[in-house]
Amino acid sequence: MPTAVLLLSCPDQAGVVHGVAEFVLGFEGNIVHAEQHIDVESGVFFQRVEFDVPGLTAERLATSFAPVAERFRMTVQARMAADRPRIALLASTQPHCLTDLLARWRSRELPAEIAVVVSNHEEHAALAEFHRVPFRYLPVSPDTKDDQERALLATLAEHGVELVVLARYMQILSTRVLDAYRCRIINIHHSFLPAFVGARPYHQAQQRGVKLIGATAHYATAELDEGPIIAQDVTPVSHRDSVQDMIRKGRDLETVVLARAVRAHVEHRTLVYGNKTIVFG
Amino acid sequence: MPTAVLLLSCPDQAGVVHGVAEFVLGFEGNIVHAEQHIDVESGVFFQRVEFDVPGLTAERLATSFAPVAERFRMTVQARMAADRPRIALLASTQPHCLTDLLARWRSRELPAEIAVVVSNHEEHAALAEFHRVPFRYLPVSPDTKDDQERALLATLAEHGVELVVLARYMQILSTRVLDAYRCRIINIHHSFLPAFVGARPYHQAQQRGVKLIGATAHYATAELDEGPIIAQDVTPVSHRDSVQDMIRKGRDLETVVLARAVRAHVEHRTLVYGNKTIVFG
Amino acid sequence: MPTAVLLLSCPDQAGVVHGVAEFVLGFEGNIVHAEQHIDVESGVFFQRVEFDVPGLTAERLATSFAPVAERFRMTVQARMAADRPRIALLASTQPHCLTDLLARWRSRELPAEIAVVVSNHEEHAALAEFHRVPFRYLPVSPDTKDDQERALLATLAEHGVELVVLARYMQILSTRVLDAYRCRIINIHHSFLPAFVGARPYHQAQQRGVKLIGATAHYATAELDEGPIIAQDVTPVSHRDSVQDMIRKGRDLETVVLARAVRAHVEHRTLVYGNKTIVFG
Amino acid sequence: MPTAVLLLSCPDQAGVVHGVAEFVLGFEGNIVHAEQHIDVESGVFFQRVEFDVPGLTAERLATSFAPVAERFRMTVQARMAADRPRIALLASTQPHCLTDLLARWRSRELPAEIAVVVSNHEEHAALAEFHRVPFRYLPVSPDTKDDQERALLATLAEHGVELVVLARYMQILSTRVLDAYRCRIINIHHSFLPAFVGARPYHQAQQRGVKLIGATAHYATAELDEGPIIAQDVTPVSHRDSVQDMIRKGRDLETVVLARAVRAHVEHRTLVYGNKTIVFG
Repeated sequence: MPTAVLLLSCPDQAGVVHGVAEFVLGFEGNIVHAEQHIDVESGVFFQRVEFDVPGLTAERLATSFAPVAERFRMTVQARMAADRPRIALLASTQPHCLTDLLARWRSRELPAEIAVVVSNHEEHAALAEFHRVPFRYLPVSPDTKDDQERALLATLAEHGVELVVLARYMQILSTRVLDAYRCRIINIHHSFLPAFVGARPYHQAQQRGVKLIGATAHYATAELDEGPIIAQDVTPVSHRDSVQDMIRKGRDLETVVLARAVRAHVEHRTLVYGNKTIVFG
Repeated sequence: MPTAVLLLSCPDQAGVVHGVAEFVLGFEGNIVHAEQHIDVESGVFFQRVEFDVPGLTAERLATSFAPVAERFRMTVQARMAADRPRIALLASTQPHCLTDLLARWRSRELPAEIAVVVSNHEEHAALAEFHRVPFRYLPVSPDTKDDQERALLATLAEHGVELVVLARYMQILSTRVLDAYRCRIINIHHSFLPAFVGARPYHQAQQRGVKLIGATAHYATAELDEGPIIAQDVTPVSHRDSVQDMIRKGRDLETVVLARAVRAHVEHRTLVYGNKTIVFG
Repeated sequence: MPTAVLLLSCPDQAGVVHGVAEFVLGFEGNIVHAEQHIDVESGVFFQRVEFDVPGLTAERLATSFAPVAERFRMTVQARMAADRPRIALLASTQPHCLTDLLARWRSRELPAEIAVVVSNHEEHAALAEFHRVPFRYLPVSPDTKDDQERALLATLAEHGVELVVLARYMQILSTRVLDAYRCRIINIHHSFLPAFVGARPYHQAQQRGVKLIGATAHYATAELDEGPIIAQDVTPVSHRDSVQDMIRKGRDLETVVLARAVRAHVEHRTLVYGNKTIVFG
Repeated sequence: MPTAVLLLSCPDQAGVVHGVAEFVLGFEGNIVHAEQHIDVESGVFFQRVEFDVPGLTAERLATSFAPVAERFRMTVQARMAADRPRIALLASTQPHCLTDLLARWRSRELPAEIAVVVSNHEEHAALAEFHRVPFRYLPVSPDTKDDQERALLATLAEHGVELVVLARYMQILSTRVLDAYRCRIINIHHSFLPAFVGARPYHQAQQRGVKLIGATAHYATAELDEGPIIAQDVTPVSHRDSVQDMIRKGRDLETVVLARAVRAHVEHRTLVYGNKTIVFG
């Protein structure tokens, strides 16, 4: 049976859970997952509710739920669980995240559509072609950056992209793009943020002599490497690991952490508040 | 404000979440945590709901909730979150889990009362005394095992014990004790079960040449090391680790895993179904 | 500068380290890595020594070292670090390990040659072709198993294969193949061995209610899932994870653990003794 | 048989390993462990060699080895493996690291002597007394800080302390103390450095919305939280974790990471170079 997902937030107040449950019951629906969180400091209530209802659509869901949302002053996203967001993958030279996400999609593990691959390096064309995904080559130079961003935005629009994944894309996006896809651009940074922001984090890590290296997936914002964190992981290193070893070990981290974040997003399990995320289980 | 906890299970059916939310709303309560799970195979619904209600007691909660429970054919446990279950710690020679749980209790980290320490080794008396916890020395020999179990049960009753923690207690309990404290005896086994059941698991692990050793906290049942698992963790080992090294590294695992399981239980976050547990987050 | 690797074992005795160091010094070589291990129980000494020597070859190394080996009654493997073993990848339906190892090889991360891909499923032909690796389709049925193993051995011989990687190859190999490639066949099993040997380990894991699932890479032997373990890892699961979720989470483990084991082997860092491995760092 | 340990560093050059092995052989000793590292960038060779020799003492070892050290321009520390360094534990209010290290020592897990416990809080006196370790109460105020540091140094001298462990000691030590115990003061910082230096790292972590919290053990230097890192570990957190939850989860990390670092030091397995450590396995 198709299931619907509500992702909502509102001022914390008695009766919200009841209000949502009543709404579902009105459709003779059954709640199959429900998770909630209260941010005590700010007094905000967050909830993800997944329920099965015969014959519902996202539009009808949103319309029907509007009175409940209004009553509790909710911000709400309404989705059908089976909706598969359309993704653009952006990559520079390194192929590991790109390869991995395409393979997860091909094996039907990733509940999304990969609509287009964009790169400032032409050599990924073959990989995209192998997966029968449109490829757009958009080389970037200081002079052409502005034009290329326009071309990028056109490409995203043309392919109906709802989520942009920076799969080791080493170009900094302007606010024009960031604003157009607010909370819908996921970047992978190759350190356990907030340690080692900026360039060459593995070099910084080796320099500092840390015993763990990490990777962080976050929503991209205008402040570089400062956006809301979605997923992080680390792996041990030692004095024996050169920068090259760290780069190699880090690739496995980057791949897995980015995939985990993308999965959480396309399963409608993430909510952003302030500069943080709630990632429901 | 005091919060109440309902831990419930019932046949999965439309309206359960609504029914519970309605009950809470009837008390003008606010749901501060709620988590649910449906075991699809068996069609059973499980939920943990925590809500704040001024002036409620566990008894009044249970009585008021009875009609809801009946309507949905629920099995339910009703608690006040602030209730601190009374614990008996049982230990043999090794002190690490005993020392750790007493220290967590002393620093008010563990929301429970340690009512009594029982050991078949007299030397733990000083540690118990330091923490001002009653100590009962119950040596065990094949001849006296039966008498001692009777004495153990009497001790548990005398101290109003609600949870028995086998903190590296190496005696096998008879069904008399196991039945009296069904799903209320937590054991720590020094392997990642189901690998290496029975005696000397670190020797077995070293023999097999595994690259990870583990520890498992589970509810004790008549089938040795076969009870419902509450928590598990592992740590890497290598060819360099002797059995003695594994025993040492394993102690840290045992300590942390047992503490995590005890914490889940005394926070009323565990439910047993069949031979498995649900551990709410 | 090219470096040479000696992987040796012998009865533990005074003077071995000195003997090896003297040999290296005789070539005016410099030891860049050295690691040793003594198995106290059996009194066996193991060592991996890597040193740089201008103009050495594996053959000349082996010949020159023979007197040292004889003097200390050593078993020894002599390699040039830059030697890239030729690998055959065998896969059944699931592509994740195959895709991953091919991608690591393509990006020059894996210091080996992938000589051939063999599968009992024809659909991997496109992937092999994309990577320009010869593909051999060898369907298996009870009737043809014997013929196909002959064909497999012929294929391995034809491509000069030195290491066979069972990248989720679900066919059981006969002793004919196992003996021909003793300690040179690496399998990935989808559980933390010795838990859940045999078929459908994730189903077994879900049934048992474990809180961790694992993957194990080991050298294949005639005893199914009983061979020397090279690498293992685990990931947490909970009551929320269905068998399908475990299978999905497990894929990431299998991929990484198998890659780690293959890497250790092709970097000449593994030694087998009894039913265990030494994996040098 | 007693074993001796050499911890050495020198310019990387051919013949060093041979020179050390020859020295050991001259005593008819047997090398039971040996590990080496070359820092390629700076061209420095590091080695830890452990060997058994009947009737050796640390003094005789140092004297005999002097010519070898001179020949290769080595910096060297010579120890008997059985030497148990004398430790001072310094703690402020929080007892978890103090309790843990005392318990490890009491159970003979920690190969060291705990010579004295020092605190600016009187309540740890009972714990020290329970373990029969001298306790020194040294309250600190801005006015008395100078006097107290003098008293601290006198206490350390009086008890022959060789290693100072800051077991959650929240006072900043002056360079007078830091210089007197260079590379012999281990601190535990409650974040994964270099993230969240300074005060209230868990508050900082919660503010930033990280998905992992960490702990770092390092040698204390004049630059706060900037000293050479010995050990680090992390644990996952989520939006559900309040600062209080992070503090609680962090305690387990701090305890284990500090114990691991102290163990490495007292087993003579750490070498400091520049602002980094080599921690031999």
